[in-house]
Amino acid sequence: MRELTVELGERSYPIYIGQGILNDITALFDRAKLSRKSPLLVVTDSEVAPLHLERVMALLRAGGFNATSCVVPAGETSKSLSQLEGIVTSALQAGLDRSSAIVALGGGVVGDLAGFAAASFMRGIRFVQIPTTILAHDSSVGGKVAVNHPMAKNIIGAFHQPELVLFDIDLLLTLPPRQVKAGLSEVIKHGLIWDAAFTQWCDDNTEKLLSLDPEALGYALYIGCKVKSIVVSQDERENDLRAILNLGHTIGHALEAVAGYGELLHGEAISIGMVGAAKLAQQFGYSEEIHEVTKGLFLKYGLPVSIPPHLDTDSIMSAMMHDKKFKEGTMVYIIPMEIGKVEIRKDVTVEQVRQIVELLKGRG
Amino acid sequence: MRELTVELGERSYPIYIGQGILNDITALFDRAKLSRKSPLLVVTDSEVAPLHLERVMALLRAGGFNATSCVVPAGETSKSLSQLEGIVTSALQAGLDRSSAIVALGGGVVGDLAGFAAASFMRGIRFVQIPTTILAHDSSVGGKVAVNHPMAKNIIGAFHQPELVLFDIDLLLTLPPRQVKAGLSEVIKHGLIWDAAFTQWCDDNTEKLLSLDPEALGYALYIGCKVKSIVVSQDERENDLRAILNLGHTIGHALEAVAGYGELLHGEAISIGMVGAAKLAQQFGYSEEIHEVTKGLFLKYGLPVSIPPHLDTDSIMSAMMHDKKFKEGTMVYIIPMEIGKVEIRKDVTVEQVRQIVELLKGRG
Ligand SMILES: NC(=O)c1ccc[n+]([C@@H]2O[C@H](COP(=O)([O-])OP(=O)(O)OC[C@H]3O[C@@H](n4cnc5c(N)ncnc54)[C@H](O)[C@@H]3O)[C@@H](O)[C@H]2O)c1
Ligand SMILES: NC(=O)c1ccc[n+]([C@@H]2O[C@H](COP(=O)([O-])OP(=O)(O)OC[C@H]3O[C@@H](n4cnc5c(N)ncnc54)[C@H](O)[C@@H]3O)[C@@H](O)[C@H]2O)c1
Ligand SMILES: [Zn+2]
Ligand SMILES: [Zn+2]
Repeated sequence: MRELTVELGERSYPIYIGQGILNDITALFDRAKLSRKSPLLVVTDSEVAPLHLERVMALLRAGGFNATSCVVPAGETSKSLSQLEGIVTSALQAGLDRSSAIVALGGGVVGDLAGFAAASFMRGIRFVQIPTTILAHDSSVGGKVAVNHPMAKNIIGAFHQPELVLFDIDLLLTLPPRQVKAGLSEVIKHGLIWDAAFTQWCDDNTEKLLSLDPEALGYALYIGCKVKSIVVSQDERENDLRAILNLGHTIGHALEAVAGYGELLHGEAISIGMVGAAKLAQQFGYSEEIHEVTKGLFLKYGLPVSIPPHLDTDSIMSAMMHDKKFKEGTMVYIIPMEIGKVEIRKDVTVEQVRQIVELLKGRG
Repeated sequence: MRELTVELGERSYPIYIGQGILNDITALFDRAKLSRKSPLLVVTDSEVAPLHLERVMALLRAGGFNATSCVVPAGETSKSLSQLEGIVTSALQAGLDRSSAIVALGGGVVGDLAGFAAASFMRGIRFVQIPTTILAHDSSVGGKVAVNHPMAKNIIGAFHQPELVLFDIDLLLTLPPRQVKAGLSEVIKHGLIWDAAFTQWCDDNTEKLLSLDPEALGYALYIGCKVKSIVVSQDERENDLRAILNLGHTIGHALEAVAGYGELLHGEAISIGMVGAAKLAQQFGYSEEIHEVTKGLFLKYGLPVSIPPHLDTDSIMSAMMHDKKFKEGTMVYIIPMEIGKVEIRKDVTVEQVRQIVELLKGRG
């Protein structure tokens, strides 16, 4: 078992990563001083429930925890106020009190939704993450929790740090291959922004990661969480440094919005975005090699590196302007300076980004 | 103009109280460093809007603030997730960003709802209170914001402190008499729990307060806010001391629930509850005078001191058990030890409370 601490003063918490560690759930909950008297609510989704819920509930009950569960439909649309209300209904029916905890068993959707429920139920109760996707290594660090509004993603939320994160590799073995790749996209991102050696390691261990080799996957999740936690520790409230986590996300978010959530998974959209940022780097005088390495890596992982041609450039640009707000024709953009190092630039123009979008459509 | 600071370290904020101080809104917003660039959203309700909204908007715009407004239906049912979603729609349409503020213009309902919107929009933006009810002196101190769930009041919320509170007596002059009395009930509570001299003052100034004499009302609101802010400063997260603010609320909440919100206003329900707590005090050996003074004061203010006989004792008791949770037949209860001083007792039995309920129904 690997262990790391997300350092946030009073709100610091541990992340445990390893194969089979779900068996230690009781001991880990005890270490976090979770209450056996007050009911626990486990929130999961309709795809994860048939695969893993029963086992989690059995372990908790065997350990003497008073656990109830609540299942939301799988998919991004569950990040809504109406699902939040449903979780609160379950919490009230189960008799949760101020010493209770909500446990998120699932991917980023369940983590964000259940996390916001924990942040707001009785003005904040304790929260535990048991991530079941690779992508959730990202959402399990940093305490951002939220639901969507029909007009905007993640717009209603809170910062609410978990008590602990329990990442059992065994839970990930049921992931469909497309979700595996998409999750690895964020893992690779953490290398690209912070750790050149890990980027090289990702290049050397592609096969292992794609086949969910437990040792390799455990290491990759550990480094991914570690990089994010270093960044978040230095900037909990997203004032400056945390922006570097958005490498590839400017174009990525716009692509997700235009394609309609679903056609492109988040990890797929940002792999295209990271290739775009690497291309943009050349215009600021950085080495061409950055683009080659980035693109090569995502290709190796079977992730998309160009924009599906049917997506309209104007629509992509306008989604981006909506998302980010250009100030006097320029925007904040994360640009790689070399592998493992990025900068936050404020002088990227709309015109430059449009050119990159065109390039990514194979027309540049 | 009276001014006091709610001392909460980094989250400290000023409360300004006075007649006509709305005219200083721009200066006060500037003092709090509210942004003129980022849009402001003023949230109010359908009864306050025709009375005061236009003037507030005109003053803000004249002061160079980019202000938009949003009106919710008057009444407790607006404290809902669906009204929250509506406010977020308005916020998105108005282009609010992370430097924006939400301004609550109204009573406790608008304060709690708009406050939770501010707490959760983009994971927390700035928040200003312009209370228009007397009762809102209470909700403007302490940072508790929330909406209701069909099964429970105030169950989905946050702690989110405002940047400032601007209490203009002139805005209160349109209040219907019943709302005036109900609001004064919480003001009197703040005397009963903390300040015997102020309780005497409330007895001496009944006429002035009921007729909304600006000087008297300004002073009463100042002391009410002051007492609450002292308590809250010592216990921001409601771990212990803050419980004393619940004098009269155990029975009060149960009465509101059983009567159906509306038949009894909150201030009316807790005046009955405070008379009950004073009666209970006798059983713990405290002076009978506490009950006489308390009851006399509420009678003088035209507030109810007994339970409407058609409300069923069993229903009241079961609402209370639902709300508070008796542990092994006893519950936490706030009991006056003398005027201006209360204690938090943990040994009050269900039977004792039932007897008090019976007494309050005039059958004891
Ligand atoms: N809070 C943050 O900091 C943060 C960071 C990144 C992403 N996110 C959010 O995370 C969400 C995306 O997360 P995600 O990719 O994990 O999506 P997800 O939770 O929707 O999971 C993807 C799909 O895989 C299924 N699934 C999950 N675990 C499985 C398993 N073990 N076996 C089989 N199927 C499984 C789910 O049911 C779902 O259909 C987005 O809403 C995004 O906004 C949040
Ligand atoms: N957050 C807290 O700490 C806290 C504390 C106490 C109460 N509360 C909440 O406050 C709410 C009750 O507050 P309230 O009594 O102010 O209720 P309210 O906001 O519903 O106002 C009462 C009525 O008076 C009307 N009104 C408001 N200002 C007016 C004015 N100036 N002129 C004419 N009419 C006016 C309103 O439209 C409403 O119909 C409850 O929801 C309660 O839970 C919160
Ligand atoms: Zn991402
Ligand atoms: Zn009250």
